[in-house]
Amino acid sequence: MNPAAKRVMARADALAAISETPDTLTRVYLSTQHLQANQLVGQWMRQAGMTVWQDSVGNICGRYEGLRAGAPAVLLGSHLDTVRNAGRYDGMLGVLSAIEVVDSLHQQGLHLAQAIEIVGFGDEEGTRFGITLLGSRGLTGTWPESWLEKCDASGISVAQAMAQRGMDPAHVPHAARHQKDFSAYLELHIEQGPCLEQEDLALGVVDAINGARRLNCRFIGEAGHAGTVPMAHRKDALAAAAEWMVAVEKSTQQHAGNLVATVGAVHCLPGAVNVIPGEAALSLDIRGPQDGPLERLLDELLASAQAITARRGLSFSAETFYRIAATPCDARLQSLLGEAVISVQGRTLSLPSGAGHDAIAIAERWPVGMLFVRCRGGISHHPAESVMAEDVALAIKAFGRAVCRLANGMANLPAGKC
Amino acid sequence: MNPAAKRVMARADALAAISETPDTLTRVYLSTQHLQANQLVGQWMRQAGMTVWQDSVGNICGRYEGLRAGAPAVLLGSHLDTVRNAGRYDGMLGVLSAIEVVDSLHQQGLHLAQAIEIVGFGDEEGTRFGITLLGSRGLTGTWPESWLEKCDASGISVAQAMAQRGMDPAHVPHAARHQKDFSAYLELHIEQGPCLEQEDLALGVVDAINGARRLNCRFIGEAGHAGTVPMAHRKDALAAAAEWMVAVEKSTQQHAGNLVATVGAVHCLPGAVNVIPGEAALSLDIRGPQDGPLERLLDELLASAQAITARRGLSFSAETFYRIAATPCDARLQSLLGEAVISVQGRTLSLPSGAGHDAIAIAERWPVGMLFVRCRGGISHHPAESVMAEDVALAIKAFGRAVCRLANGMANLPAGKC
Repeated sequence: MNPAAKRVMARADALAAISETPDTLTRVYLSTQHLQANQLVGQWMRQAGMTVWQDSVGNICGRYEGLRAGAPAVLLGSHLDTVRNAGRYDGMLGVLSAIEVVDSLHQQGLHLAQAIEIVGFGDEEGTRFGITLLGSRGLTGTWPESWLEKCDASGISVAQAMAQRGMDPAHVPHAARHQKDFSAYLELHIEQGPCLEQEDLALGVVDAINGARRLNCRFIGEAGHAGTVPMAHRKDALAAAAEWMVAVEKSTQQHAGNLVATVGAVHCLPGAVNVIPGEAALSLDIRGPQDGPLERLLDELLASAQAITARRGLSFSAETFYRIAATPCDARLQSLLGEAVISVQGRTLSLPSGAGHDAIAIAERWPVGMLFVRCRGGISHHPAESVMAEDVALAIKAFGRAVCRLANGMANLPAGKC
Repeated sequence: MNPAAKRVMARADALAAISETPDTLTRVYLSTQHLQANQLVGQWMRQAGMTVWQDSVGNICGRYEGLRAGAPAVLLGSHLDTVRNAGRYDGMLGVLSAIEVVDSLHQQGLHLAQAIEIVGFGDEEGTRFGITLLGSRGLTGTWPESWLEKCDASGISVAQAMAQRGMDPAHVPHAARHQKDFSAYLELHIEQGPCLEQEDLALGVVDAINGARRLNCRFIGEAGHAGTVPMAHRKDALAAAAEWMVAVEKSTQQHAGNLVATVGAVHCLPGAVNVIPGEAALSLDIRGPQDGPLERLLDELLASAQAITARRGLSFSAETFYRIAATPCDARLQSLLGEAVISVQGRTLSLPSGAGHDAIAIAERWPVGMLFVRCRGGISHHPAESVMAEDVALAIKAFGRAVCRLANGMANLPAGKC
């Protein structure tokens, strides 16, 4: 087995052992386990020749100097926090692979035009405080003041949790980096979806991180006796909702551009076998890599619900309770990663990311690119999350090529060097 | 206001006051309120010239003798028990209207070729013991032995409850009547549906009491991330169920013969906004006035579910947990009631009964006919259950004509007599 990939797999296992829960993996922001993981990762960064520090919001950071001290850096990173009962690669794989890229340069005594920095973000999942991307928004300097007061399930605020770990909440702004510090951000991550597996490919390049909208939808009709009300006289809220669910699926399939829409929850009232439903409440989750087409599809779906309910003499309402814009990846970084992927697996695949990533926050300030690695069955946020060491070997190789070209002013290094 | 109708409305109010619950109407089998209601109804029967007794299962019975003592009787009846938080007409209206028909004969000193008997059944709804039609199955002599052991929510068995009211469980078979005792059974009842109101008619004649099947249905697909699994790769159990619900509605509407089908409850797993449903559980309630077409429609719906899931790569299963055959009403009694209805409102409407009635049990042994009376908004099993006194007046008139012709050997009485 490729020694770099082997080490990444072993280190993922070592990190998976640092958990709040005995038999499963749970590691949340500002837990003692979070800081333990930071220490271990910092130690690996140091072994790869990096200068290491933990920033004021709890990210573990390392810098591998360029040819000229103080040069701008290519920033690599992902997160070290997890959901509850998590897998061991979501986030961690990106940090560990980045360390291998730097380690390879360090072993060869190579320094490039630009420096390379790696960040292991302290919070991407938002598991503990219900707010996400705390680590990456530390770097961008975009923490809202209100975040320090957000509390976890035990009533401990972010500020209190920081103090418990010896960190000063007043220093949060110190984590912010200057625009000129970084030329680009590259993140390697498991796909968390089935596309690469379906295409029989180890690697793919993200074109955008999906924007998303979430809505609570409500069909209101008239409850009635399931035996005595003829079909033609019914105002069945669930029947109307079913017609709409079919329209949601069909319209979304017909739209180009990798849009997805999901009705994940449905509840009908009164919900008895012998009563015609008077009310149906549904969730709608709709995502896509570009906000324009996403909004157009959403408008179409809401208009369809209005048309269905108007025809049936029912009423419909919907309320958006979550909205995040799409994050396009930088075109130049997509090409760079695509070429690197082609060099290791013959062809590349461009695909959107359905899940959110640290790159969403970083993209507000710096160009971002993402490399996806196949995971088995698309399973993620689950102990069964799994990657193959061969894929990790290819990923490190492709990622390393892209990082080195970028840090070397787009010139290829001599063959075998990176 | 017509004095008979006025008295029926007042007596319905008086019975509604006999309740286990202070502000609502709940009167279940073998409660003290049940026996109080029997006493009051028995008193009204006596005032109408009837011989009165409570039978061995707790039905209140009255007989108005024919010209010749011991002649077969036309049996009239409905039930005096209620659901919890009930309306005041479901059941009671039929008993009270029947008493008015007899009272009118009594006032005129008229006796007909056949006797007239009225039964106020003690249990039709099955509210207390979860088994239904205990009163009417007392008359038909078809109580299964197991019924005596059935318990209510407090663990009191039917046998114990009988003993508490001074009744002997060993005497249940004494309630059974001989085949030759009755020539026919006629029941007047509120429609509990919207058809008469929609047709702007006070009265209609039931052609059959719907048969019914109830099923638990299950669509099994694959749960997945709502953001990362493209539409084309999904095995969304709820999307498949929605497609089927649309097919259920459409196929049922297209079938002739007053069939109805209802999905009243739906539950999907895991039921989160951002997860593609891996499983959807639905109830199906399907009813119709003839078993043949009902079974054919059900077969068609199940085949449709199989086709939908096969095409989508999902699986489907269904389990029937309740089944009751359709009860056709006697053709001769339908004509008789139809003519009587035409004589009072100019035209008649033939319609199925979506709900169950005492006539279901009685039909096993005697020919049955049912007259439906309009109720506001089709609302029933609810305190808002409501009938108009004008409709009750017409109902008593039409019902009286039909009863008298039947008891008079199909000869009309002289005008004004009935």
